[in-house]
Amino acid sequence: MNVQSPSGKILGMDWSKGAGESEISCSINDFSAVPAMDSSSFIVVHGAGSFGHFQASKSGVHKGGLNKPLVKAGFVATRISVTKLNHEIVRALAREGIPSIGVSPFSCGWSTNMRNIASADLSAMTKAIDSGFVPVTHGDAVLDDELGCTILSGDVIIRHLAAHFKPEFVVFMTDVLGVYDRPPLDSTAVLLREIEVHEDGSWSVVKPTLENISKVKTDVAAHDTTGGMETKILEAAMIARLGIDVYIVKAGTNHSLRALRGELRGNVPEDWLGTVIRFSK
Amino acid sequence: MNVQSPSGKILGMDWSKGAGESEISCSINDFSAVPAMDSSSFIVVHGAGSFGHFQASKSGVHKGGLNKPLVKAGFVATRISVTKLNHEIVRALAREGIPSIGVSPFSCGWSTNMRNIASADLSAMTKAIDSGFVPVTHGDAVLDDELGCTILSGDVIIRHLAAHFKPEFVVFMTDVLGVYDRPPLDSTAVLLREIEVHEDGSWSVVKPTLENISKVKTDVAAHDTTGGMETKILEAAMIARLGIDVYIVKAGTNHSLRALRGELRGNVPEDWLGTVIRFSK
Repeated sequence: MNVQSPSGKILGMDWSKGAGESEISCSINDFSAVPAMDSSSFIVVHGAGSFGHFQASKSGVHKGGLNKPLVKAGFVATRISVTKLNHEIVRALAREGIPSIGVSPFSCGWSTNMRNIASADLSAMTKAIDSGFVPVTHGDAVLDDELGCTILSGDVIIRHLAAHFKPEFVVFMTDVLGVYDRPPLDSTAVLLREIEVHEDGSWSVVKPTLENISKVKTDVAAHDTTGGMETKILEAAMIARLGIDVYIVKAGTNHSLRALRGELRGNVPEDWLGTVIRFSK
Repeated sequence: MNVQSPSGKILGMDWSKGAGESEISCSINDFSAVPAMDSSSFIVVHGAGSFGHFQASKSGVHKGGLNKPLVKAGFVATRISVTKLNHEIVRALAREGIPSIGVSPFSCGWSTNMRNIASADLSAMTKAIDSGFVPVTHGDAVLDDELGCTILSGDVIIRHLAAHFKPEFVVFMTDVLGVYDRPPLDSTAVLLREIEVHEDGSWSVVKPTLENISKVKTDVAAHDTTGGMETKILEAAMIARLGIDVYIVKAGTNHSLRALRGELRGNVPEDWLGTVIRFSK
């Protein structure tokens, strides 16, 4: 996906000055040797992590009430933090030669009604993809028709994008190998390799075939305003019901790379560690 | 416009960590003492300055041709730079207690056709203003139906916003006192205090009443991809033809403060230095 010179050098697209640098470093001359750019299309969605959750939860932005000065200030503070993270991610991808473009839900005019997406125009994102860019969007503070404002989580955005763009697959990257039957810090936790989602929305673990996995226990960090792993499984299940395979993987591992490359389509190798969530036809 | 506690302390809304700071500093407790926030509405539009012009001009983004890898990379690099500046401006305003919200033209799905605005949905901005926020938008790299891409300048955006929102007045802030009859570095340059725009689009200097001001010479910096002062006057004249007074002032001066406060409406004091551009009825 990234742009390389004929000699294999990655051509970066972040031409802004870094901290402590006096000169703009750019690869303008190298680009003239590139005949054309690959255009496999994908979208990157990220959450807020430590950027934004603090600001949102302290001020109660997710609960609404924009008429309160604290909530309004928290809305501003949350957007500053999440757009800062978005900017850093766009830069990091651009430095690796990926033509990434930041697209903020609030700027796109996305809004919610009782936390469900009420309006989400995807024309900007569609045009960006059609032009060969990789849109990078994120969980954001948005206006809510009923509540005044709320937090639209990255997970809800992914489901909305999946329903519209019908991608071949969706990859959720997290800090553990996949979904476990209980919080993964518990040494007896078992990695669920394959989950099937049924027509009625219920789901069952098909691999491993262990007894006692009737209930999956999850955990939500106290500062997380958008639901943690529980929301992720629920959103993933809703995406799977659209007939789109979902892979939950650990970021930065070979397992996530294989999932992103599409190597798991149709057949999940035994040595791959992660969770596949798919629709049972 | 900004939020102050009952004791007059400005309440900042940038709760992100600064460089070298280990703790998030925020004014959450102070906000509980604020009864309600002022809601006089305005929009801030900024150009790219040294953020973006280099990236755009070196790669030719303003001339289009997205199929060329260099132009595509320049598009990405330009957007990284201009959104970085936007982020810094939003933060600076938030620190002063102004509920500022960054809104990027590209994210809003704005596009051009042969550099003229073809599509510019203002619903996100309208909703932001109606909710009491101050949208902060900027010149941006956008997709162009004919050229593939181009640079949409802040000046063109201001005209578009003025035509839609019909503000009481528009203030252009620059680094000189106003419009001069020749480049202001020329020691014989005369500050034009008042310019009238006529129905047919022509314009004349009504103050000072000097001879030989039949032609105004302007200058465009070599790196400026969007036209410099010439474009600013032309755009200002087009705004004035809508019946909206335009003030061109030096940023950071008492003159700009008076213009921003609306003190010039109807009557321009003798001790005010700047250029008023208005429609001659």
